[in-house]
Amino acid sequence: MVGLRLPYKALTILCVSKLTDVPKRILIGRALRSDRLGETLLPKRIALPVFASDALSSVAYAPGEVLLVLSVAGVSAYHFSPWIALAVVVVMFTVVASYRQNVHAYPSGGGDYEVATTNLGPKAGLTVASALLVDYVLTVAVSITSGIENLGSAIPFVVEHKVLCAVAVIVLLTLMNLRGVKESGSLFAIPTYVFVAGVFIMIAWGAFRALVLGDTMQAPTADFHIKAEQEGLAGFALVFLLLRAFSSGCAALTGVEAVSNGVPAFRKPKSKNAATTLSMMGVLAITMLVGIIALALVTDVRMAENPAQDLLKGSVPVGPGYVQDPVITQVAEAVFGNGSFLFIVLAAATALVLFLAANTAYNGFPVLGSILAQDRYLPRQLHTRGDRLAFSNGIVLLAGAAALLVVIYGADSTRLIQLYIVGVFVSFTLSQTGMVRHWNRHLRTEKDADKRRHMIRSRAINAFGAFLTGLVLVVVLVTKFTHGAWVALLGMCIFFATMTAIRKHYDRVAEEIAADETPSDETIRPSRVHSIVLVSKLHRPTLRALAYAKLIRSDRLEALSISVDPAETKALKDDWERRGIDIPLKILDSPYREVTRPVIDYVKSLRRESPRDVVSVYIPEYVVGHWYEHLLHNQSALRLKGRLLFTPGVMVTSVPYQLESSEAAKKRARKRAEWNAPGSVRRGPVERRPKEPSSKA
Amino acid sequence: MVGLRLPYKALTILCVSKLTDVPKRILIGRALRSDRLGETLLPKRIALPVFASDALSSVAYAPGEVLLVLSVAGVSAYHFSPWIALAVVVVMFTVVASYRQNVHAYPSGGGDYEVATTNLGPKAGLTVASALLVDYVLTVAVSITSGIENLGSAIPFVVEHKVLCAVAVIVLLTLMNLRGVKESGSLFAIPTYVFVAGVFIMIAWGAFRALVLGDTMQAPTADFHIKAEQEGLAGFALVFLLLRAFSSGCAALTGVEAVSNGVPAFRKPKSKNAATTLSMMGVLAITMLVGIIALALVTDVRMAENPAQDLLKGSVPVGPGYVQDPVITQVAEAVFGNGSFLFIVLAAATALVLFLAANTAYNGFPVLGSILAQDRYLPRQLHTRGDRLAFSNGIVLLAGAAALLVVIYGADSTRLIQLYIVGVFVSFTLSQTGMVRHWNRHLRTEKDADKRRHMIRSRAINAFGAFLTGLVLVVVLVTKFTHGAWVALLGMCIFFATMTAIRKHYDRVAEEIAADETPSDETIRPSRVHSIVLVSKLHRPTLRALAYAKLIRSDRLEALSISVDPAETKALKDDWERRGIDIPLKILDSPYREVTRPVIDYVKSLRRESPRDVVSVYIPEYVVGHWYEHLLHNQSALRLKGRLLFTPGVMVTSVPYQLESSEAAKKRARKRAEWNAPGSVRRGPVERRPKEPSSKA
Repeated sequence: MVGLRLPYKALTILCVSKLTDVPKRILIGRALRSDRLGETLLPKRIALPVFASDALSSVAYAPGEVLLVLSVAGVSAYHFSPWIALAVVVVMFTVVASYRQNVHAYPSGGGDYEVATTNLGPKAGLTVASALLVDYVLTVAVSITSGIENLGSAIPFVVEHKVLCAVAVIVLLTLMNLRGVKESGSLFAIPTYVFVAGVFIMIAWGAFRALVLGDTMQAPTADFHIKAEQEGLAGFALVFLLLRAFSSGCAALTGVEAVSNGVPAFRKPKSKNAATTLSMMGVLAITMLVGIIALALVTDVRMAENPAQDLLKGSVPVGPGYVQDPVITQVAEAVFGNGSFLFIVLAAATALVLFLAANTAYNGFPVLGSILAQDRYLPRQLHTRGDRLAFSNGIVLLAGAAALLVVIYGADSTRLIQLYIVGVFVSFTLSQTGMVRHWNRHLRTEKDADKRRHMIRSRAINAFGAFLTGLVLVVVLVTKFTHGAWVALLGMCIFFATMTAIRKHYDRVAEEIAADETPSDETIRPSRVHSIVLVSKLHRPTLRALAYAKLIRSDRLEALSISVDPAETKALKDDWERRGIDIPLKILDSPYREVTRPVIDYVKSLRRESPRDVVSVYIPEYVVGHWYEHLLHNQSALRLKGRLLFTPGVMVTSVPYQLESSEAAKKRARKRAEWNAPGSVRRGPVERRPKEPSSKA
Repeated sequence: MVGLRLPYKALTILCVSKLTDVPKRILIGRALRSDRLGETLLPKRIALPVFASDALSSVAYAPGEVLLVLSVAGVSAYHFSPWIALAVVVVMFTVVASYRQNVHAYPSGGGDYEVATTNLGPKAGLTVASALLVDYVLTVAVSITSGIENLGSAIPFVVEHKVLCAVAVIVLLTLMNLRGVKESGSLFAIPTYVFVAGVFIMIAWGAFRALVLGDTMQAPTADFHIKAEQEGLAGFALVFLLLRAFSSGCAALTGVEAVSNGVPAFRKPKSKNAATTLSMMGVLAITMLVGIIALALVTDVRMAENPAQDLLKGSVPVGPGYVQDPVITQVAEAVFGNGSFLFIVLAAATALVLFLAANTAYNGFPVLGSILAQDRYLPRQLHTRGDRLAFSNGIVLLAGAAALLVVIYGADSTRLIQLYIVGVFVSFTLSQTGMVRHWNRHLRTEKDADKRRHMIRSRAINAFGAFLTGLVLVVVLVTKFTHGAWVALLGMCIFFATMTAIRKHYDRVAEEIAADETPSDETIRPSRVHSIVLVSKLHRPTLRALAYAKLIRSDRLEALSISVDPAETKALKDDWERRGIDIPLKILDSPYREVTRPVIDYVKSLRRESPRDVVSVYIPEYVVGHWYEHLLHNQSALRLKGRLLFTPGVMVTSVPYQLESSEAAKKRARKRAEWNAPGSVRRGPVERRPKEPSSKA
């Protein structure tokens, strides 16, 4: 197993590492740089938990949401739940089959954004990107909220302080990700497998007790009654309710697309392995979903949208103090017994998997950001892979938005899920539609009959996928719009508008700076260089700047000093003469001790005299090691530089002088270079291009 | 009156200015730049309110403090108050006489800091500076708090929300000063003269009513009783209490030194006019102080340190809801009648003068900062006179500290005053001691008998001043230390330590960078220049950078591109060839799309190959106009620049390309240049030195 470290081993390593690095290297190998780490490819058994934690964890909340909606028509409506589960299973099956085609056709890991952009054009791609960005925010909000609720069924304190705990987990994950915790597959593998195993044991044991032993298992809410909010629904109203329940159940599909973003991280044959993993994930998710719903019906779980009023104990509402536990923990309580070891383990594993699912969004958000930056929809500096600054900004934005949602919605997963499903199905639909176009295009040129048959089959699958997910999207929009889906749509619009504006800005600038075909442009044909070295005193930085400026042979070279104190100016002139420096020294008077204005005025006057000359200003600069030293040095230089840049025909040269303290900064920079961007394990290695050493035009 | 603008006139101007500038120019003259404004010298009648608002306003709180302390020994101790007033008057007289000598000897406006540094050395100077900085903070805190209390006797709401109102006034003054409100003498003249006139009318009318009409005037607290906290004090305990009362009374002396900082702003003969103004101020302050205390005794004002318990109505304490009004308003109520027009006017004028006194600190703090920066005790960039950035930083620091004190001390002027007097007397004592040394030094060389006699007289005055203020300082320290003076001392120590550390840092750096006498230093004798132009695409900024770099003729010139996308690199190479650019293009591979690391590594490898070469890196840079555009451009260039500066033997040249949007920034810069530093009216004009055009070594 890649990089598997058991906790006690890690502890040993931690203790030993202070004595010597050798045992550590023997035990876990040389520390990997982030780029090296990426080159470790994932076998299927690790890839499954890494990419499927998001999708699998959604079975922790999807079944409950179905029952919640049905309860509106009273407990009798629960008998529709198997049919709804079946519908969700059909959609899940379709989506998995569709994405198997994506994985084969687009092994680059660009995911839905790439598929939509390539086949449907940039607007569709940007729509998908906006949907995915909103989705990442909601993955964090929903998963953590739901995790807190699951944890809460074992630890009451947590559920009593839901918002606080949820925000605390967000902060914790944020800090972990900002610090750059090195990931390993085992981080995902252990809790995910414990969770899957736990659910399967629960299903098997529950089935055994019910069918073989004939036990009557009772969920803690089994003897509650539900006051139907809308009694005797029929016709359109009933259909609408069932569709709403189905929409909620589709929350189980969130995260399915993750594998298609991670193909490069798989072992070869990448696409095949990814497709197999996707199928395994589908089978697991479907089994767990159906099993949990079945057990919920058997154990008579009762859930209501407004438990305080609609859940009756005898004939009295349970009141606002009542906390409605998730279906999965209610079923676990019925099957394993409250407080039993397996109950606790399952509750903990469920919460942990949900937190891991949230963590995947922390990794996915900056990766998508980097792809969008490459296409100039986001600031260009984000395009660096695993760049710390870009990563940090993305993480803070994501965490801030998620925390805001958690606070606004009072850490209520049911209300947050209403927002969740829109984005997922927007990207499903657009991606599948894109795939249909993809096959159409390839079929136009493909001659090989075998391949054609294969493509036609794939196209059929994707076409059905597009149709079905599109249908679900419409259903979701119709049934959920007023329940909160509009918020998700608004978020998508904001992302879309911002990214369009950024792209427009870059395009406009690109046009503005595009070079003419004939290089006749006056602005780029300067005639001579007039160099100015700024001098305050004759110390080493100045001497260095003077030496460098002389070395560079401009047409005219002079030193310029701003006189703010007659005594200092006098000393400078004397020193200048004594040292016999053969550069003319010009002194400008500045009664208000300003530095910037006289220099700018002088440079402007030079430019007026000979407009085709270039003025080159040399500024000696101190390089320091601590932030507070920056406050003490270079401030005037910085401001001057800022102003000079606005003056046309000027270049500004910093001649750095490294003070001793700058060593400290160098050390810090080295440490920073060893930072590991979280999420690299999911991203796979970079494809190395053949080196192009150096060429000459 | 200089620059007097009545509100309705200002309003007219505001309306008209939108139509045309001509009427405005006719009415108020051409807009003055801050440097021009400074050249308007102040006549005595304007200088008095400008510089004396601080000192005169302190009579609003000093008399009350005396009575408060005496009340500890019961109301019978009030009969000591005339003697304490007399002692304060003696000190005031001495201090004014002493500062008249300062004004003549140091007409440059350096004030106590200059006197102490010149005559007693830098440590004494720094002590004075620390004391003055603490003083400025306390001037704001005490004056505003006291102003709020005075306002509160007319408007109960204000006193019920003391802390809130005080902080609001601080915020208001801060914003006004940050925005750079143009000052005029009238801003100070009107409220100060109204205040002085009001107090004099009150004293005269009160004396007339008491002596001629024989009226019995009753302060609102006249029939209260005071429960003496320490009954029957005698001996040392009584003396100590009287000394404490005297210390509190000395609060009347705060602000006296202001004139000595403002000599350059006076009309000629500067020193003589300043000395006269100082005397006028002394006479006014003494008369007002004595008058108010006398009226307080006549009208039976009762004040207690803890009014809630020690002020009895009959024999019942007034309780915590009781608000103790300042002496000046109690007296005004007794003399003019509660709610009468003159009472309201006086309360408002008092509050306004106190706020103006706080405002003087806003002006004084950055001026002192600029002087300290010149001596390298504060960051060097603060030395620019009226520099906006320096000014803003100083203002925010001052306001933050003052607001903190106001909140901590619950806007209780009595508690804040305990901190106030230490700093004032530290600088008085050191300044006067310095003056004695000054005269001693001059007497050593002076031959003229007349002048010698004059100097000996001045020395005697200053020596007595030093002795008396030193004595007061000891009294203040002994009687007030535990009451809060230690906070002021702590503040002084913090300022002192910080400034010493900054100076040490500058000195260490100066030593590190000092040039050797023989310019044999290897580091400043490079042999050749290897120039590198960073290229991403062939657009105008790049072409400009290439053209500039070529113009400058280095020993070796090449273009360097980091390949982050093979397609783009290919396009660049093709473009390069097609345009026939005669500079070799080197391409470095960067699979992780990093830009910084490959460039740094390449530069380092060049340096290793030929260590004596200088590497000159040209970076094309976009100049933009809006802050958010900065997020979209140059981030990689900025980071690269930052890293390159740490590599020895490198210079970094920015070749700016001004985008169209940069025009917006230029306009803003022009606006900013027209900003007026508040306080310029008190600072006087700069002495112009003869221009030194340009000289050649």
